[in-house]
Amino acid sequence: MKIVLVGATGTIGKAIIAKLEKEHTIITASRKGADVMLDMTSVASIQAMYAHVGKVDAVIVAAGAAYFGPLETMTPEDNQQSIDSKLKGQMNLVLLGLDHIQDGGSFTLVTGIMMDDPIKQGASAAMVNGGIRAFVKSAAIEIPRGIRINSVSPNVLQESWDKYANFFVGFNPVPAEKVAQAFVKSVLGGQTGQNYEVY
Amino acid sequence: MKIVLVGATGTIGKAIIAKLEKEHTIITASRKGADVMLDMTSVASIQAMYAHVGKVDAVIVAAGAAYFGPLETMTPEDNQQSIDSKLKGQMNLVLLGLDHIQDGGSFTLVTGIMMDDPIKQGASAAMVNGGIRAFVKSAAIEIPRGIRINSVSPNVLQESWDKYANFFVGFNPVPAEKVAQAFVKSVLGGQTGQNYEVY
Ligand SMILES: NC(=O)c1ccc[n+]([C@@H]2O[C@H](COP(=O)([O-])OP(=O)(O)OC[C@H]3O[C@@H](n4cnc5c(N)ncnc54)[C@H](OP(=O)(O)O)[C@@H]3O)[C@@H](O)[C@H]2O)c1
Ligand SMILES: NC(=O)c1ccc[n+]([C@@H]2O[C@H](COP(=O)([O-])OP(=O)(O)OC[C@H]3O[C@@H](n4cnc5c(N)ncnc54)[C@H](OP(=O)(O)O)[C@@H]3O)[C@@H](O)[C@H]2O)c1
Repeated sequence: MKIVLVGATGTIGKAIIAKLEKEHTIITASRKGADVMLDMTSVASIQAMYAHVGKVDAVIVAAGAAYFGPLETMTPEDNQQSIDSKLKGQMNLVLLGLDHIQDGGSFTLVTGIMMDDPIKQGASAAMVNGGIRAFVKSAAIEIPRGIRINSVSPNVLQESWDKYANFFVGFNPVPAEKVAQAFVKSVLGGQTGQNYEVY
Repeated sequence: MKIVLVGATGTIGKAIIAKLEKEHTIITASRKGADVMLDMTSVASIQAMYAHVGKVDAVIVAAGAAYFGPLETMTPEDNQQSIDSKLKGQMNLVLLGLDHIQDGGSFTLVTGIMMDDPIKQGASAAMVNGGIRAFVKSAAIEIPRGIRINSVSPNVLQESWDKYANFFVGFNPVPAEKVAQAFVKSVLGGQTGQNYEVY
């Protein structure tokens, strides 16, 4: 398969590459150090990426930023960061990518455990995760040409624990390898409309 | 209680008024024909509304537009309509309203069944509903001063059936009166972080 992997240089992205690169052609996409330059917050950049890569069998997104901060001080502008990046970025990769996916291909997006098991300072990020999950579930019933669409909802990663431990108090972090398996299931399996919880 | 009701002139809003107006002071807010002029898509308009009404015990939102249309032709701009109105409009009414709610007061937002039981042409609206549900669940664990926050997720209404029957094939519409009861539970009850499904 020819697979675009957005966020391939990230913690989750690297674990996905490790699982897929032997048997598939991975085209990496992100703002720096990737095969194709992509800023997912920009419609023009998404369009340019698809024009460059041509038809592909799968698009995987393991990228997208969301705002973390106390609800009490959160401004509409803070929340906009989440909307522009992880929410609209992922949705636009689907909306603008439909014509570039082969029949029977797939989209796999990323959500996160905070929508189900909320943490302080996480309301904006939880919103994005819940929005993407519902979009995926709904898009799956009308996406054309046998194309499938799923999302993966990771718990906090063991590999990210040093960075996020103070936010995710009492959580049991999971290995990136296990999260990557859910992306593999989405891309190589047959299911659609799912949100794979790796909790 | 002094309650701001956004969308009071709508199908759901009118049913909420009928239940609360005898024992509470309702301040209605919408773009036309209300006590206070409000366009929830505008931060400045939300700020002006709160400055005008002062401290209140509850804010109810029974308003917010979302885009309906086939996934295959949906553009980022189409989707933006949902983001600007039902998603950001509701979130900003909370973010900018926190200082205007009395201790122990409440916010009640609106979602919808399509996030759980998807319909064709509903992917953008489902996204908004899922985003608001997750925001509410997460915001509830850190909202200050005993303030509560819930959402109500209505099935399609009997009163809206003529308008929406072609979208909601096979659904069993519910009366607006039953949906209004869930708003009453949120405002006068003690729960928080809930999404009341009126399915
Ligand atoms: N790590 C966790 O514990 C965890 C848990 C649950 C969910 N998640 C979610 O999983 C996703 C990836 O997390 P991660 O920890 O692997 O992230 P990460 O290590 O910070 O890597 C992010 C990746 O995305 C790319 N990226 C960032 N902004 C981009 C943009 N605007 N356009 C294109 N590419 C962009 C980065 O490359 P460039 O900077 O070069 O663009 C990088 O490749 C995020 O959405 C995160 O919320 C992570
Ligand atoms: N009806 C259903 O079957 C159903 C089912 C599930 C969920 N819902 C959700 O429930 C909410 C209300 O639905 P409804 O059927 O009662 O709607 P409706 O009858 O169309 O009424 C909408 C109300 O919101 C106000 N409004 C619209 N845009 C606004 C804006 N930008 N700023 C401030 N106020 C605005 C309208 O007044 P102005 O036009 O004067 O501003 C009106 O009072 C919507 O979010 C809808 O998605 C409805």
